[in-house]
Amino acid sequence: MGQTLTEKILEDHLVEGELETGEEIGIEIDQVLTQDTTGTMVWLQFEAMGLDEVQTEIAAQYCDHQTYQFDFKNTDDHRFLRSAAGTFGAHFSRPGNGICHNVHRENFAAPGKTLLGSDSHTPTPGGLGELAIGAGGIDITVAMGGAPYYVEMPEVVNVRLEGELPEWATAKDVILEMLRRLTVKGGVGKILEYTGPGVETLTAPERMTITNMGTELGATTSIFPTDHQTEDYLERLGRGDEYVELQPDDDAEYDDEIVVDLSDLEPLVAQPSMPDKVVPVSEVAGQDVEQVIVGSCTNGGYEDILPVAKMLEGREIAMETETIVAPGSKQASEMLARDGWVAEMMAAGVNFSEATCGACIGIGHVPASDSVSMRTFNRNFEGRSGIEDDNVFLCSPEVAAAAAIAGEIVDPRDLEDELEGLEAPGVELPDEYDGSKTDLIAPDEAVDDELIKGPNIGDVPIRDQLSSDISGEALLKMEDNITTDHIIPATQDILMYRSNVPKLSEFTLSRVDDTFAERALEADGGFLVAGENYGQGSSREHAALCPMYLGIEGVLAQSFARIHRANLFNFGIVPLTIDEDTYENIDQGDEIEIVDDVYEAVASGQEEFTVRVNDDYEVTATLDASQRERDILAAGGKLSWTKEQAQGSGAAPADD
Amino acid sequence: MGQTLTEKILEDHLVEGELETGEEIGIEIDQVLTQDTTGTMVWLQFEAMGLDEVQTEIAAQYCDHQTYQFDFKNTDDHRFLRSAAGTFGAHFSRPGNGICHNVHRENFAAPGKTLLGSDSHTPTPGGLGELAIGAGGIDITVAMGGAPYYVEMPEVVNVRLEGELPEWATAKDVILEMLRRLTVKGGVGKILEYTGPGVETLTAPERMTITNMGTELGATTSIFPTDHQTEDYLERLGRGDEYVELQPDDDAEYDDEIVVDLSDLEPLVAQPSMPDKVVPVSEVAGQDVEQVIVGSCTNGGYEDILPVAKMLEGREIAMETETIVAPGSKQASEMLARDGWVAEMMAAGVNFSEATCGACIGIGHVPASDSVSMRTFNRNFEGRSGIEDDNVFLCSPEVAAAAAIAGEIVDPRDLEDELEGLEAPGVELPDEYDGSKTDLIAPDEAVDDELIKGPNIGDVPIRDQLSSDISGEALLKMEDNITTDHIIPATQDILMYRSNVPKLSEFTLSRVDDTFAERALEADGGFLVAGENYGQGSSREHAALCPMYLGIEGVLAQSFARIHRANLFNFGIVPLTIDEDTYENIDQGDEIEIVDDVYEAVASGQEEFTVRVNDDYEVTATLDASQRERDILAAGGKLSWTKEQAQGSGAAPADD
Repeated sequence: MGQTLTEKILEDHLVEGELETGEEIGIEIDQVLTQDTTGTMVWLQFEAMGLDEVQTEIAAQYCDHQTYQFDFKNTDDHRFLRSAAGTFGAHFSRPGNGICHNVHRENFAAPGKTLLGSDSHTPTPGGLGELAIGAGGIDITVAMGGAPYYVEMPEVVNVRLEGELPEWATAKDVILEMLRRLTVKGGVGKILEYTGPGVETLTAPERMTITNMGTELGATTSIFPTDHQTEDYLERLGRGDEYVELQPDDDAEYDDEIVVDLSDLEPLVAQPSMPDKVVPVSEVAGQDVEQVIVGSCTNGGYEDILPVAKMLEGREIAMETETIVAPGSKQASEMLARDGWVAEMMAAGVNFSEATCGACIGIGHVPASDSVSMRTFNRNFEGRSGIEDDNVFLCSPEVAAAAAIAGEIVDPRDLEDELEGLEAPGVELPDEYDGSKTDLIAPDEAVDDELIKGPNIGDVPIRDQLSSDISGEALLKMEDNITTDHIIPATQDILMYRSNVPKLSEFTLSRVDDTFAERALEADGGFLVAGENYGQGSSREHAALCPMYLGIEGVLAQSFARIHRANLFNFGIVPLTIDEDTYENIDQGDEIEIVDDVYEAVASGQEEFTVRVNDDYEVTATLDASQRERDILAAGGKLSWTKEQAQGSGAAPADD
Repeated sequence: MGQTLTEKILEDHLVEGELETGEEIGIEIDQVLTQDTTGTMVWLQFEAMGLDEVQTEIAAQYCDHQTYQFDFKNTDDHRFLRSAAGTFGAHFSRPGNGICHNVHRENFAAPGKTLLGSDSHTPTPGGLGELAIGAGGIDITVAMGGAPYYVEMPEVVNVRLEGELPEWATAKDVILEMLRRLTVKGGVGKILEYTGPGVETLTAPERMTITNMGTELGATTSIFPTDHQTEDYLERLGRGDEYVELQPDDDAEYDDEIVVDLSDLEPLVAQPSMPDKVVPVSEVAGQDVEQVIVGSCTNGGYEDILPVAKMLEGREIAMETETIVAPGSKQASEMLARDGWVAEMMAAGVNFSEATCGACIGIGHVPASDSVSMRTFNRNFEGRSGIEDDNVFLCSPEVAAAAAIAGEIVDPRDLEDELEGLEAPGVELPDEYDGSKTDLIAPDEAVDDELIKGPNIGDVPIRDQLSSDISGEALLKMEDNITTDHIIPATQDILMYRSNVPKLSEFTLSRVDDTFAERALEADGGFLVAGENYGQGSSREHAALCPMYLGIEGVLAQSFARIHRANLFNFGIVPLTIDEDTYENIDQGDEIEIVDDVYEAVASGQEEFTVRVNDDYEVTATLDASQRERDILAAGGKLSWTKEQAQGSGAAPADD
């Protein structure tokens, strides 16, 4: 039986497991990337692991989210990241050098490699035939330590492209069409593999717009085969020697197939406030637009901004429409500047910004109240722009430029009819991507050889091996559906402490009980008790890391949300399932004791645990976990486990 | 007796008073400028005055402080300002188009004109022979309404320039030398008039670096005569027809004279954390520099950034030194981009920013902790950069560029010796300032004809004519030395409500008593009681405006700080001086009644007022005020007074 491209790359990197849908596999990681808001914890964990040097072929640390450096904590984070990259052997991209995905694709992404990144849009280089997956910080840390990455083998879906894009339809419209059809949940548990005759009509940058925004489908990743377009792009980047031809076998079997005829596509927009609320631009034409922003990792390349510059050349943007262009990389900015396009855009009325994630993550250029903003970004979740009740539309650079000129939403084909001389700019790659690399510091050029930590950068806590005896107070009893936002709020005033676990921990569960953090620290050990679906919401690791810092050793809940449950294992907290009666009977303040030898029981595969309450009665609680999860928990969490693995030490029980 | 240049322009604009030092004079204002953090209140007050159209020759509204638009309140402010400019007949400069002083000098500043601006660096166009003064928002409002601006006639000091600047010494070093000699208080109550043979060796942009930073000397303004350099600059701007020759008479008499020999100057820096802590660069050379920023209204012109671009061409900035270039205007950016210099700077490692005040006011690019930042700005007050205990040095663009290359503070003359091919770039003006004006919307192009107020933009309160009967509770009794920071705190979370007096008023005196605002609103009238030096600190008008909004009618204090006292008149609150015994005897909660017919007494010039306390005993309080101040107070404040003046109505007492 033939293989899909996905299977070929996975097989090439397989360390553990079998390539069967739903089975856990372990794969070797060739490249990792981190950005500034997730990177600090990655490196603090790397330090805590006691390792000396990055083990992957490439590790790259980018500074793209907090480039405006509003607070010294941001600037301190950037300095720390530079020092960490220098100390441990990663490439460092300075703030202003661009968005991680753009700089990575320009410099490192390569066909056939695996990439793990602590950012959800890591799949971008799938457009170059790299198998790229977004993951949590600790997964990056562990991968940098040389360990495999574990994931359940997703379904592989064949997205067959036919035909060719007509004028004014773009790669952005391909992925918007996918979102229209599949919705934001349509890709969950899947890898989207693009095939068919339409593929070769798309340049590599266009493919990367599609793979980038595959994240909005919920896909594990998206990937294209490689061909002359891939080779051509790599050659223009000066990395032609990294080209490898990669195609699925003719008789590859896919779990599902979707056919998209490119020639049927037209300019589309995603309406507020979900990337899958997609309609043709013409359906919403005529609405006043007060803000247009071109950029982001989806449409911030040289090839994305050049069409905008061409459309704006010799024209003026509408007076009531603020237009910001924020390239995805400084290389793009520099090349556009060198060719005169930056001056041209400025003359048209564009506010030309430094290369940054910026507005896409709600940092800067927050729309005015009750106004429409057209953006070439990948997400328009309500409030993400920085204001509640926002009206953010997602579109291609061409549709954005048309709105900037017209001051309202307009199908560029209609604008072409109205405006003399306007024509579809098409896609054009530069002969050579010849921007300088001054802001990308290679490990062997690095000046730092020790970590520089500002006052907001704390050490990361690391837990010892799991104890045999665990007992303590039920410090907090919670209801059903407690979210990670309850556990660690993500508001701006709290976010800036993400490099500072002791400080951040002060906010743990404060939305439930603002005395909790202090009580937990004083108690030095204890339990959380919760109802159904504990830990739902985001994947943020701090929701387990902070309780661990506060000394929490176990959580008794009726059920756990999937990702948070994994995080509890990763940070050495025992997640035990209890039934409804037990939940009802336990009160906050009760004394809880796990009667079993916990270390032994966890490590050996025991499922039922005896829990003694108030030295008065006993109940049963359940641990449902794979052997790998048990090993991690027994070791005290993923950091300790990886450290053990690296040191080749046995996992003997702790003395206490 | 001959006249100084200052006297000539003042005489030409004199509406009231005589040009004698210390005498109050009223002058006609030709031009006004406002920026975004002060402009919203200016326009709300203009609206409250009930006027239809700006009366000055030029009014220009710039958006330069909050260009990053972190909060929708910033973006809403910008939209409101655009609508106000359109509605009332002002020019509107869009966010990203540049710093008010830079855009104003490029487009409007002209010899012999008077300019009033709600920004402390308004004196910038003094370098073009314009008499330009910074003032509070309400003064701008009133001037836009067509009324004169009143100021005590300052001393006029002759700053005689001799010789010529040697290589690597710049205009920035001239003003740094002035600060070294005079200190930050040396210009208070003075106008600095530059004369002598050194003047003609300086281009107009260089002169404007000097007049801009005259503000740091505390000077009312600084001014240069006009000559071929002025004419040359105006011609390159395409405004040669606005040139007027202006020179002091040969026998002009000055209050004082200072001689600066330009040929003695060398590269200087102001050390942390005061602009007058000036030493030669060589004295502090060798310190590591982690951040360099070039820009601001002092050194953000095309002529300031070009030397930096030349110094960086073909070189790379030090790896550990983040270097940001933020031009003062988009015109400068566009010209630098068109000539290839932006690409050149990016290639060297510069983070090229949109045109903004930005970091100079602590918004963005906050230095890392315990690090040195070299900036071409005008202020380095402790904490202004956004971090306490900062180490900000002020210097010329050339010294900044040298630090960026070397990664440490270095005298550029020493760097020249070390670095092959490096030479002093000198000053070079472009043949033509030919940037586009797309982002500067003239009144006759404006699309707005009504005000657009977002939910954070409240109406400005306006007080009726002073009452004849004033009585109420002593709502708060305070100690000596209450500052305007006590009255209206200026922290970021409160600042964003500056367009929203009702909301902002909730914070009034909250640092003294957080129940005050609510109690005052409920009481609907009442008094504040304070010790010595009430209202010291900044000039912020909200410290009077918010108490007025809360209904406060009088303040009884042992003494008042000068500017706050003026603000109380401007917002219709009666400031009465009491003696120490009276202060001691009055308690918070006492019932206070002014026995006199207050309107009549204030208007007629009465100085002693009888105050009845708790209907029990009487004391005497004093009102010490000029007739103009009394007229303003009687009218209910400066807005009501100006409204009356404009409507030509008599000032009859109110009915109640």
